[in-house]
This record gives sequence, C-alpha cells and structure tokens, in this order.
Amino acid sequence: MSQVNRRWLLVEHPVGRLDPSHFTLHEEKIRELGEGEILIRNIYLSLDPTNRLWADARESYMPPVETGEVMRGLIIGVVEESRNPAIKEGDIVQGILGWEEYVISDGTNVSVIPYDGAVPLSAFFGLFSHTGLAAYFGLEDIGKPKEGETLVVSAAAGAVGSVAGQIGKIKGCRVVGIAGTDEKCRWIRDDLGFDASINYKTESVQDSLKEHCPDGIDIYFDAVGGKILDAVLAQINFKARIAICGMISQYNSSEPVPGPYNFINILYKSARVEGFIVLNYAERFGEGINDLVRWYSEGKLKYHIDIVDGLENAPTALNKLFKGTNTGKLIVKVSEEPSI
Amino acid sequence: MSQVNRRWLLVEHPVGRLDPSHFTLHEEKIRELGEGEILIRNIYLSLDPTNRLWADARESYMPPVETGEVMRGLIIGVVEESRNPAIKEGDIVQGILGWEEYVISDGTNVSVIPYDGAVPLSAFFGLFSHTGLAAYFGLEDIGKPKEGETLVVSAAAGAVGSVAGQIGKIKGCRVVGIAGTDEKCRWIRDDLGFDASINYKTESVQDSLKEHCPDGIDIYFDAVGGKILDAVLAQINFKARIAICGMISQYNSSEPVPGPYNFINILYKSARVEGFIVLNYAERFGEGINDLVRWYSEGKLKYHIDIVDGLENAPTALNKLFKGTNTGKLIVKVSEEPSI
Repeated sequence: MSQVNRRWLLVEHPVGRLDPSHFTLHEEKIRELGEGEILIRNIYLSLDPTNRLWADARESYMPPVETGEVMRGLIIGVVEESRNPAIKEGDIVQGILGWEEYVISDGTNVSVIPYDGAVPLSAFFGLFSHTGLAAYFGLEDIGKPKEGETLVVSAAAGAVGSVAGQIGKIKGCRVVGIAGTDEKCRWIRDDLGFDASINYKTESVQDSLKEHCPDGIDIYFDAVGGKILDAVLAQINFKARIAICGMISQYNSSEPVPGPYNFINILYKSARVEGFIVLNYAERFGEGINDLVRWYSEGKLKYHIDIVDGLENAPTALNKLFKGTNTGKLIVKVSEEPSI
Repeated sequence: MSQVNRRWLLVEHPVGRLDPSHFTLHEEKIRELGEGEILIRNIYLSLDPTNRLWADARESYMPPVETGEVMRGLIIGVVEESRNPAIKEGDIVQGILGWEEYVISDGTNVSVIPYDGAVPLSAFFGLFSHTGLAAYFGLEDIGKPKEGETLVVSAAAGAVGSVAGQIGKIKGCRVVGIAGTDEKCRWIRDDLGFDASINYKTESVQDSLKEHCPDGIDIYFDAVGGKILDAVLAQINFKARIAICGMISQYNSSEPVPGPYNFINILYKSARVEGFIVLNYAERFGEGINDLVRWYSEGKLKYHIDIVDGLENAPTALNKLFKGTNTGKLIVKVSEEPSI
C-alpha cells in the first residue's frame, strides 16, 4: 500500500474559537492491514458543535483530543479493504473516528449502515444518525411531549433543532423555533411547519416568547444555553421539561459562565432540567431509526444538508456552527460516494 | 363569642430579610360561626424558609400574601367548636392557614390528623407532615437512591435535610451532610448516622466534598442553592440527580442572582435537576406517612424540634432559619396541646 492519508492533527488546544491555526494537515503513508483490520475511505465528516468541546484542554463528557492526535469526528465511510470476516469490502460504515481521508479500524468502533441507496447517503447525517437521534431521544425521553403542549426549540434551523421541532409537530405540540436569521426563520416556519419563529438577533426573545407562547412553555429543547435559556426559564409552566442537548453559547468561553438568572424558576415551577448526549441511548437507536425512517417516508420529516467540499476546509467550516451561517446539518465531503 | 383573636398582619412586603417591622399584631373579636364552619384554636405554627417567599411582593410558586392580610402559615390546631358535620369538636387538624391564635374555616382547607397521643403532637411537624414528606418524596421520586450511591444533603441539620439524610441511610447510600455549625455536624453524624459532615462556614466545601465523596456524587438533596450547589455540581457523577427542595441562600436577595457556574455539568454529566414542592405529592401523602411512621417505630428515624414559645415571637423566630441558629424543625407554640 503506497497510498497517502491526509489527517488533521490538533497542534494546540484552543482558547476561544477554533481556527485552522490549531491544526496541522499531516500526510502519511497508509500502512498494511493486520489480521482483523479494515481500511475505511472516509466519505462524509460530520461537523458538530460538540467538536469544539473535544478540542478543548478541559474534559467535558469525553476525554479531550490530545495535541498531536488526529482530531476526533463522526464519519461515514466505505470499506476499501477488509481482513475482518464480519465486515466486507464495499460496506458503508459509521463511527466516531477522525478528521482524515482514510482510517484503519479493527471494526469495534464502527457500525455497518444497511445502505440500499433509497435515500442519499448524506441523509444519514441529516436524519438517521446522531443528530436525528439526539432530537428523537431528547424530545421523547426528557421532553415527553403531550398533545396541545407548547414546545420551544433553540438553534431551530440547526441539525438537531430542526428535527426536534418537526417531531414536536408530529406529537401534536405548538412549536416555536428560535433561530438567528430571517431566512432560517422562514425555513422552519414555511418548509418545516413550525407554528412560529423568533429571530433572536432582531427580536426581544422575551417579548416574542410571550406573544408566541400564550399558554406558557411546557417543553424547551435547548442546544444553546445562555440568555435564551434564561428568557425561556422566565416563562415556563408548572412541571416544564427542559432537555439540554448542548450549550453552544459557551463552548468558546474561556471564562467561567454563570448559570441562568431564572434558575430559581426550576424550584418555583417544579420543573425538570436534564442534560443528555445521544450515546446514552445507544441501546435504543434501532427504535429511534425506525420511527425517523417511517416519519420521513410519510413526508413528515424534512432535512437540509449543508455540504462543504474537501477535508482541507474542515477547521474553517466548523466555525459556521458558531457563527450561525449554516442551515441544517453541516458536513464535509471528504471523498466521492460509491455508486450503488 | 367574645373571645379575642391576635393575628399577625403583613403591613409591608420585605426587601431583604423579614423582620417584625413588616408585620403588625392585630386584635379582633372572633365572630359567630356560620353553618358548616369550624373554629380552630392554633397550637403549633410551622416556620419554614418558604414563608419568606410567601411574604415577598413577587409571585413564587404561590401568590404572595397581600399587605393587610394575615401572614400565611402551616398550623396544627384543635377544633374548639364545630357547625360542620364532618369535623367534630376536639379533632386535631392541620392546614395552610395563618399566623394567628384562632381561625374559622369551612373545613375545605384543613385535614384531620388521626392523633392518638402515641407521639408528641409536635412530632407531626418534625416527621409526619410537610417537612418529612418533602424529604421522602424529593429523595424517592427525584433522587431515586440506589444502594451504594453517594448522597449529599445541604441544610442537613434542618427539618427536611435531617430526614432526607436518614432516609438515604435507610436506602443504603453513603450520606454526606452539609451544615453551618460544628454542633449541627456532630448531631447529624453521631445521632442521625450520617457518614460524614461538612461545616460550610469553616471548611472548603469543594475540598471536603472531594474527601468525603471519593466516588463522586450521585444524588444531591438541596435546600440552599448558591455556592454550595455550585461546589456539588463540580463533582457530580454521570446521571446524577439533584432534587431542589429550596434555595434559601437567595430568598432574601433583592437583586437577580446568577445560576450556578457549573451549570454546564448538567450537560456534561447527563444530570437531572428537578424542583419540587411537597404539595405536588398530595395524592401520595398516605404512602409517605406509612413509610415514615414505620421507620420511626423501627428506630431508624429521629427528629429534633426547636420550639419558640408564643405567637408574638413568630416574626423574629423566622429569621433563625436564615441565620442558621435552629436545629431540626422550627415551630412556634401558639397555645397548649389538649390532653388526650
């Protein structure tokens, strides 16, 4: 094997925003496979706000990526060579691997996707993978939506929020989405069927929540934290449920950030705030995928993929998530999809 | 009826700490009972941190007491006269009524205590009423203790915390209590059986938690909020449960108070924070009382009552809760217990 693999290595833990200076694009020859190993050609790399946490020097819910190591990322790839009897050449696999073109695995850290070409391969990252499942389990298991309740979703035009809001509609909730541009607001309202939208950059979130949630807020699906969480806490109903999927507003902060000023409303309203990561639900992924696929085939779920071309653009592209310049699921196309 | 009733009326909503200047002791004649009414002679008045919230101008989980109204309080009393067929003279009743010597009720806002003299009447406020039940349901329903887990309790020598910690021991947890004097710490450790104690006024809570919770914190039963909650959040385990029973550290604050700086650990640790008030569990009180009575009769639950004599001392006595100068359940003796 004389092929070359390009890999983004972390050279410095960021303080504040990540940028290309924290990485170096390293080239190295791909070694021969050992017994039981597979060679994966990465096709799509998922960019997620949580990547910023992984690059930090501080531990979050996973150990940080160490400097000198390849940057961690969720990828979909195709098996180009296999010396593992359980996985064959041509299989499409998914796993938390790295920001690189190729990766050698012993098969334990990947799962085979039963891909039949019925939907674009990129749809897996749009609906049928971690982001769709995060929306599904966060809403089902923590939000516990009941018909007629009011659900508010932050980062509502993002990969997770856009799905959470649509599931809220499927469950019969009034759904109000918060996003950062009029175009995103239009998309979630007109294309995804949200009942109302709030542009947090041009509107008073507090006032607009009052207007669009006349019966108060029963469920909040949050990926943002910070001031928007505070505004929501001020208007929650008795026994409200708040699913914390992320706190993107503070991932780049190097200073301690205070919690919400309306924290005491958790007491006053007998509310529940619960954090989660999608991996907590690994044993129930099948259940989630089944529902997501069914809803998609019934036309009840839509998605949008924002594709950035080329592994070399990954470090710059990640900041689209923090600048709010992407809509839907942000992915990097590392190489071509195989023809099915 | 020519008897006189003394009543504490709220004359001004407090900003900061409550003191006697916010009340006036008003005297008025007791009127004749109407059809269906009962006259209750109050025996014990429960003083609870939540009384401070009721006196505030801002709404908490209940509407505030208005100025000119009698101050709201939980009382135990004896029925001296009844024109209600469901309640007879001599019955012992309990209800959220007022800071006064007598009260006329139509019977809908009181419940009859099946009192047989087996325990002192004051024990109801120590164990078998709202504080014992708050400890019981907060721990059972939100804390969900499992054998071998570590439970931390704040205000651990208080009415609720002292019971919550003992129930934690019954459930097989390692129990660490946080209190404000060495005497309180000794009491919860040596008399109540807590595994360890932390005097937050003389120790670093952060360091002492590290020492006494070598396996991290699985459950936190909190009545305090503020810096102690923050210290606990820094050391919670994956899937920790935090039951918020109160936030006494900020009831007297007139300025907005930030939430905990370690709020993001709710996300990192997939933790759950849930507020509650004991009234949420009203339909299950019987279940709670049964367990509490059984554990008490088995010698597994102890309580301490701090009795202040005389209704006239209620406004001053309430501040013992905020100064931390009471141990166990603080009550005011308004009049003599009837002999059984």
